[in-house]
Amino acid sequence: MSDAISFRLIGTDGTARLGEIATPHGAVRTPAFMPVGTQGAMKGVHWRDVREAGADIVLANTYHLMLRPGAEQVAALGGLHKFINWPYPILTDSGGFQVMSLSELRKITDVGVTFRSHLDGAMVELTPERAVEIQNLLGTDIAMQLDECLKLPADKPEITRAMRLSLAWAERSKRAFEKVPPGRALFGIVQGGDDIALRQESARRLVEIGFHGYAIGGLAVGEPQQVMLSVVSETAPALPAAQPRYLMGVGTPEDLLEAVARGIDMFDCVLPTRNGRHGLAFTRFGPINLRNARHAHDPRPLDAESRCPAARDHSRAYLHHLTKANEMLGAMLLSVNNLSYYQDLMQGMREAIAQRRFEEFRQATKAAWAQGDLPPQ
Amino acid sequence: MSDAISFRLIGTDGTARLGEIATPHGAVRTPAFMPVGTQGAMKGVHWRDVREAGADIVLANTYHLMLRPGAEQVAALGGLHKFINWPYPILTDSGGFQVMSLSELRKITDVGVTFRSHLDGAMVELTPERAVEIQNLLGTDIAMQLDECLKLPADKPEITRAMRLSLAWAERSKRAFEKVPPGRALFGIVQGGDDIALRQESARRLVEIGFHGYAIGGLAVGEPQQVMLSVVSETAPALPAAQPRYLMGVGTPEDLLEAVARGIDMFDCVLPTRNGRHGLAFTRFGPINLRNARHAHDPRPLDAESRCPAARDHSRAYLHHLTKANEMLGAMLLSVNNLSYYQDLMQGMREAIAQRRFEEFRQATKAAWAQGDLPPQ
Repeated sequence: MSDAISFRLIGTDGTARLGEIATPHGAVRTPAFMPVGTQGAMKGVHWRDVREAGADIVLANTYHLMLRPGAEQVAALGGLHKFINWPYPILTDSGGFQVMSLSELRKITDVGVTFRSHLDGAMVELTPERAVEIQNLLGTDIAMQLDECLKLPADKPEITRAMRLSLAWAERSKRAFEKVPPGRALFGIVQGGDDIALRQESARRLVEIGFHGYAIGGLAVGEPQQVMLSVVSETAPALPAAQPRYLMGVGTPEDLLEAVARGIDMFDCVLPTRNGRHGLAFTRFGPINLRNARHAHDPRPLDAESRCPAARDHSRAYLHHLTKANEMLGAMLLSVNNLSYYQDLMQGMREAIAQRRFEEFRQATKAAWAQGDLPPQ
Repeated sequence: MSDAISFRLIGTDGTARLGEIATPHGAVRTPAFMPVGTQGAMKGVHWRDVREAGADIVLANTYHLMLRPGAEQVAALGGLHKFINWPYPILTDSGGFQVMSLSELRKITDVGVTFRSHLDGAMVELTPERAVEIQNLLGTDIAMQLDECLKLPADKPEITRAMRLSLAWAERSKRAFEKVPPGRALFGIVQGGDDIALRQESARRLVEIGFHGYAIGGLAVGEPQQVMLSVVSETAPALPAAQPRYLMGVGTPEDLLEAVARGIDMFDCVLPTRNGRHGLAFTRFGPINLRNARHAHDPRPLDAESRCPAARDHSRAYLHHLTKANEMLGAMLLSVNNLSYYQDLMQGMREAIAQRRFEEFRQATKAAWAQGDLPPQ
């Protein structure tokens, strides 16, 4: 494979890793959190503020973009970076996860998946080869192989079948990716549900195929956090130390802290923006539900010491008012606050690993969350 | 009355006026356009961007704020400037207009208006005295008297009755305002529908009562533009040259241009943000409906020469995509573009008056609008 991206492992503290991914659109400091710009936009957040919040890289959803405006259309407009005006690194998923979760009518065969578009009802086929082609047309820095992601709990034969199908698709994805011009990367995806042996088999065979990085997929799909973390603990060591490891669709601040402790380098999740739209603010002292009437008279900002203006410059009483009144500005302020908090958490972890005090940081962070917020003055 | 605000008439060009209003929260360059932050928030626009768009002053709606979070609540939190974190001038309306337009159940007597809150169904009374008290609690820089605003067309007896009632309320508003601490201003509102004689009587009697400024209300309520402009032409000369004149609830870019030509100094309207949410962009070359499929492949920005990033940094194809996908970011970008365009138009008018070339500016501006947009390249 072409030397599309290079990962540099800068240091470790226990199993936690500090690194940097170099891409043609700039560097990604790891552990990294990737905000999700579903349809080529971050919900309620200007791109400038995504960057100011501290994001090095964002995720865009192939499923949405292939249906609207279409991959060929994005390519004709100069590629996704130019289309959305985000000149920094982009990772795209393969589209598979959302085919499974958003399309009512879909049929999976060895060839690929055929589904009915939720937009216009047209039947669309997505194969491993087409998923690579679409992501190449988008011009993503990091492409993901097509895989089959099951909801948990699931039966072992079903988990085994989906894992083996994902491996076959991984091989085809890699072959298809050989036609992609240099400068781009392809990640394989470990499947295997909550079965450790299947996970390790999946990881081993993906490494044999060889990718620029490895994702752990099929988690945060209904299983308890402890199951997720146990799968991560047992899977991460089966992946090459010299390449980035990405835990897909995760998660809460605590999920991030615990997964970094277990050797994960990359994450993506809609939680910061989705929860922001629903009145929930993430802070150093745990989440704050601004819909709660107890904030109506509270003149304090979310966090006077934050570097995020949304956290510093508005009272909780105002944020409560905006949330109750369903004002767009409430969703906008809480979403950017949450993106900033997530990035601050990642930065805190990166510094702690560099200084080899990750365990101390982890305990202090959890203690602050558990402390909850101070009472109104 | 206390010397709350001072208006300085800097120059004129024909009947167009260039001026500046000094308030305790800063200067307002006139002619001025006031964006409308209905419930204490600008829909889809961060306050920072309202300021960067060039707004000196914003309008907030007393009706909404008195019902939620409540005037006493805003006062307890330090007043409206602090509550919304906009440290610059604020004008509040009296609440009367929205009582008339939003409340289904309402009863107008000489005393005031009683209405059912659209939020919780509670019966609320708004009198001229309470309207002044509420605006004082909010801490507004410029308060408006309570008036009765009719929809047009209306019968002359009805117009006469509403105009005389508004005058009686003007007197009571002024008396109530004498208890307000110095540093704030009260504007009277000319009513009289489309009847010039009634308009002039209203203006004359308001001037006898004496206010810091004078608004022309009850326009842009269903009448043709020519009727509105004719009322403005006949009413403005009846108002003191040494005080600001405010045309309420107006309007389109063309309305602003024509009303400034007739001696108006201040405007407010929801059009820039409302149209932005509906996919319409105001530009130097006229409005552009981004929902139209002809923009799907257009790589050009709205206006490469704009000082507004939203106008400069995104292709029409992207804005079209966001609008079609109902992404919040589309509404956010078009709203801030529109606020910027409105402020640029006001700035252009101010410069033209200062240079005594307003008529030339007016013709050139209308010619550019009429030219429409250039075809895609």
